[in-house]
Amino acid sequence: MNVKNKTTKELEEICLQIRNRIIDVVSRNGGHFSSTLGAVELTVGMHYVFDANHDPFIFDVSHQCYPHKLITGRWESFETIRQFNGLSGFTKPKESSADYFVAGHSSTSISLAIGAAKAIRLKKEARVPVVMIGDGSMSAGMVYEALNELGDRKYPMVIILNDNEMSIAKPIGAISKHLSKLLAGKFYQGFKERVDKILRNHFPDGATYLAKKIEESMKLITPGIIFEEMGVDYIGPIDGHDIEEIINTLELAKNMGKPVIVHARTVKGKGYKVAEGHHEHWHGVGPFDTESGEFIKKSQATSATEVFAQALLNLAKQHDNVVGVTAAMPSGTGIDKLIKEYPNRFWDVAIAEQHAVTSMAAMAKEGFKPFITIYSTFLQRGFDQIVHDVCLMDLPVVFAIDRAGIVGNDGETHQGVFDISFLRFIPNMILCAPRDNETLQLALVYAYEATSPCAIRYPRGAFTPLPFEAVPFQTGKAELLHEGSSHKLFIGYGAGVARAYQTAQFFTEDIALLDLRFVKPLDKQLLKELSSKYSHWYIFSDSQQQGGVGSAILEFLNDEKITVALTTFEYEDIFIQHGDTKEVEESLGLLPQQIKERIDISNN
Amino acid sequence: MNVKNKTTKELEEICLQIRNRIIDVVSRNGGHFSSTLGAVELTVGMHYVFDANHDPFIFDVSHQCYPHKLITGRWESFETIRQFNGLSGFTKPKESSADYFVAGHSSTSISLAIGAAKAIRLKKEARVPVVMIGDGSMSAGMVYEALNELGDRKYPMVIILNDNEMSIAKPIGAISKHLSKLLAGKFYQGFKERVDKILRNHFPDGATYLAKKIEESMKLITPGIIFEEMGVDYIGPIDGHDIEEIINTLELAKNMGKPVIVHARTVKGKGYKVAEGHHEHWHGVGPFDTESGEFIKKSQATSATEVFAQALLNLAKQHDNVVGVTAAMPSGTGIDKLIKEYPNRFWDVAIAEQHAVTSMAAMAKEGFKPFITIYSTFLQRGFDQIVHDVCLMDLPVVFAIDRAGIVGNDGETHQGVFDISFLRFIPNMILCAPRDNETLQLALVYAYEATSPCAIRYPRGAFTPLPFEAVPFQTGKAELLHEGSSHKLFIGYGAGVARAYQTAQFFTEDIALLDLRFVKPLDKQLLKELSSKYSHWYIFSDSQQQGGVGSAILEFLNDEKITVALTTFEYEDIFIQHGDTKEVEESLGLLPQQIKERIDISNN
Repeated sequence: MNVKNKTTKELEEICLQIRNRIIDVVSRNGGHFSSTLGAVELTVGMHYVFDANHDPFIFDVSHQCYPHKLITGRWESFETIRQFNGLSGFTKPKESSADYFVAGHSSTSISLAIGAAKAIRLKKEARVPVVMIGDGSMSAGMVYEALNELGDRKYPMVIILNDNEMSIAKPIGAISKHLSKLLAGKFYQGFKERVDKILRNHFPDGATYLAKKIEESMKLITPGIIFEEMGVDYIGPIDGHDIEEIINTLELAKNMGKPVIVHARTVKGKGYKVAEGHHEHWHGVGPFDTESGEFIKKSQATSATEVFAQALLNLAKQHDNVVGVTAAMPSGTGIDKLIKEYPNRFWDVAIAEQHAVTSMAAMAKEGFKPFITIYSTFLQRGFDQIVHDVCLMDLPVVFAIDRAGIVGNDGETHQGVFDISFLRFIPNMILCAPRDNETLQLALVYAYEATSPCAIRYPRGAFTPLPFEAVPFQTGKAELLHEGSSHKLFIGYGAGVARAYQTAQFFTEDIALLDLRFVKPLDKQLLKELSSKYSHWYIFSDSQQQGGVGSAILEFLNDEKITVALTTFEYEDIFIQHGDTKEVEESLGLLPQQIKERIDISNN
Repeated sequence: MNVKNKTTKELEEICLQIRNRIIDVVSRNGGHFSSTLGAVELTVGMHYVFDANHDPFIFDVSHQCYPHKLITGRWESFETIRQFNGLSGFTKPKESSADYFVAGHSSTSISLAIGAAKAIRLKKEARVPVVMIGDGSMSAGMVYEALNELGDRKYPMVIILNDNEMSIAKPIGAISKHLSKLLAGKFYQGFKERVDKILRNHFPDGATYLAKKIEESMKLITPGIIFEEMGVDYIGPIDGHDIEEIINTLELAKNMGKPVIVHARTVKGKGYKVAEGHHEHWHGVGPFDTESGEFIKKSQATSATEVFAQALLNLAKQHDNVVGVTAAMPSGTGIDKLIKEYPNRFWDVAIAEQHAVTSMAAMAKEGFKPFITIYSTFLQRGFDQIVHDVCLMDLPVVFAIDRAGIVGNDGETHQGVFDISFLRFIPNMILCAPRDNETLQLALVYAYEATSPCAIRYPRGAFTPLPFEAVPFQTGKAELLHEGSSHKLFIGYGAGVARAYQTAQFFTEDIALLDLRFVKPLDKQLLKELSSKYSHWYIFSDSQQQGGVGSAILEFLNDEKITVALTTFEYEDIFIQHGDTKEVEESLGLLPQQIKERIDISNN
């Protein structure tokens, strides 16, 4: 779609078409909705002023990239967004050369633009990186690390701060407050001029050092003070839905030859009345009825997240020392309930995983029992803090890891497949997992009592119900759910227990089933006993093979000089694409029936 | 040592004694020197105004904590600082209850103070957290994540910004420039009063909304604007060597009941003339002669770092597209040479590992070959960025991982033992390691040609020379250095090759020696062949057992259904303490002679 050389009227018409297309497809497929609707005019403005085949277009988190996809040759294929083998819900260079980078985690954009700018300077090119970043992404430390270099080295780039005053949930933090204040900017501008005039009358030596100081001090009255102080020019706030104002401002910023932040005010959900404004549940949506704005409910079992939140609420009621954080995912992790009930004990610290982990380490030192509730993929951001601030101090912090395993339509940037591999080797860490709703509740009770750091993982969506009675967790104790008469032992971890159970149903043999419960520490005694009875072990776990559950058991077997035949059904060494979870698992050969066939083949 | 209720004169005398003690011991033991000397008066002031057995004393990075150790009952034991089984060079709660937290990585302090403050509020206590943080730590994103919550929720605490205008190396970045500007603060203060008066005369409706706006605008003229804008009060700059000014300011700040930053200007190395000022090499030192300030040189072989830097310089000369970063460790990583030679191609981005990784990902996308030179332990900070920005995009970024393995006197916060375990499971990643100086050079040549992300690790200090000819690296190709006649195969990785070689010397048997070279991808073909000839495999690598080199080989053997007896001499599942590297290795049973004995015992 060409947006160059169009009139304002024509561009407004294009914006309308884009909006309609987004509303139409997302209402059927689900997807990121309100932030992408809010960014339509800004994106059209970007394409008017810059060239995506030339200038690096960098979308932070990129859940607002749908208009960009529609403009850059993906109008028809947009039908398939977030579906298996369809378009990704995020920017993806493999999909289009107009997509500069993959982005599903927040706050990487300014760093990417700096790298691009360094390259451009070395290549002596005239390209200008353009970034779109939401106010919600401004809380993560990465942004400041990048601004710190940018303000010093001044690489030319345009950073559009898409300020919809909400991030995903309610805005948290000082930066957010600061931005809100800026929106009263018009007042400051007039005030500045008035003060400026008065000062100049009283310091007639206007051209001197003092005048420069006055000017500096006056600049401080403009809204962008934080950015200006960091050495980055600031323009704004502008109306992020006024295409003419956007284009004029971006043209100006592009030609300034230095880093410029363009602060644009937008409305989330713009153009779809029901979604306009501060409704967290319109951020990422399932299918809905476009007329009524009602979500089309699939009859759904209670999610693991809901079970977790209720169980944690019960714990918090019983024990005053239970506290917790979320990093900008209050409803995603279910912590919104707890923040509402106990606003002095549960906090949303914004997108700030490093800070979330370390601040909770101090609370644990003070005798509290912190629950850090976080998606598996985002816990990666707090990795060093887990090692250095929690485990080295051996503090009883609980990591409640949501979205472990395949996460479905978000895809490769969000898969929760690495957590076991990146936590298992850290000294003092306990790793356990519930197999279903009942054991999830018991896992929390266990975690509350644990005296070392403890990570519990559970999947996106609902657990598969299992016919086994739930018994309390004990450190390093596995649970033999079924003794079999064949030589096969199925070992499940977390949601893998259900997959093992379902797979066993396809066999006529009577297969033993072990719920491992703890991948660290392992139940060495029981495993040793089982090795004398069962010679063929099969591992079922939603985790990476390298360093995962199978790997842990291999290390144990080798240490103990035990020989069994071991096969693991974990994820292979690739990044796993998006799509319906079942379709994705099928593509990996991980559906129970497929596993049955794989076992049969390997036995022949 | 009691510093309470002392006169200024007495406190100054105490400061002198502390300085002399530090100069005396560090000149013999080595240690962190200039930052700790610069913080003497501030630390004495902290202990005068606060109580370390009551208020959380939080030292950022804590290499400036020696005065604190001396004041809190460790005057005599200070003799043993950084020595095996002696005092740690960092704060350590196991050593003294006056040490609130372990800290060896930077920029965790404000997060810790927030956690402590939340706990204090819930417990309804009157304690006040006090933080000491250097200007160098202000570049890391964690600080802003913490300030963002602090400015919003306003927990009472005192943050002493110990500004010695240098961090470890030359100061980098906008924040650093901003701080320098603040040091001209006295001017601003006077100027502010003058402007204030004029404005009030012109806006006689002084008590109104406008007056409040004026006050706000005037606050902007004070130096602490960035902090004030973030919602944290600011006092300063004060003279960080004037004990009276320090005490008065800290008393004031302590009683404000909200978060306050006290900006203190100090001189690194204060009190030891030779070290005063901007000398990076006085940050962490070896033994030196106190009279002359000359370092007592042990006759030392060329370090791996030096070999690396020279080899990279050669590569950079040959190839215009070679670029690189360090995160505040220019001389530690040897990148200072390259920054000097090619200031437009090599950068110090300050303590900002996340930004370092992601910005270089973009350069790789633009066709450059970035070398991210970093200590193993600090690479943990960039973990998510490695996964999400480098490996998911399959970009040919090189991670040159220095200080892999035991790092000696810095100890548990700095050991480079986890990198293999946290990188090996990431799809697209190549992991290789040189065994000596010659192969380090060849590893860089290989890395330059690699088309996927590639991590190379090498140890602190010098490689042990080996009698084998160096041959070029080929992806996934191991090198059989010696064919043996016994059933034993020693497999070395990186510096582990020399340990394997030395261990083999203790045997009368003729033992085969394999340099694994690549732990990912493994040389499956050669390993398969070797399994038919050698039945007992022994792994030598400076890495964690869990998920490490042995684990990788076990996964391979299991996949291929190959049975060999495997023993790994990697690190066990503990945090490893500080001390001379040899002493530390001895305590772990990892000296060649010890390994010989362990093998003998296991064979009996």
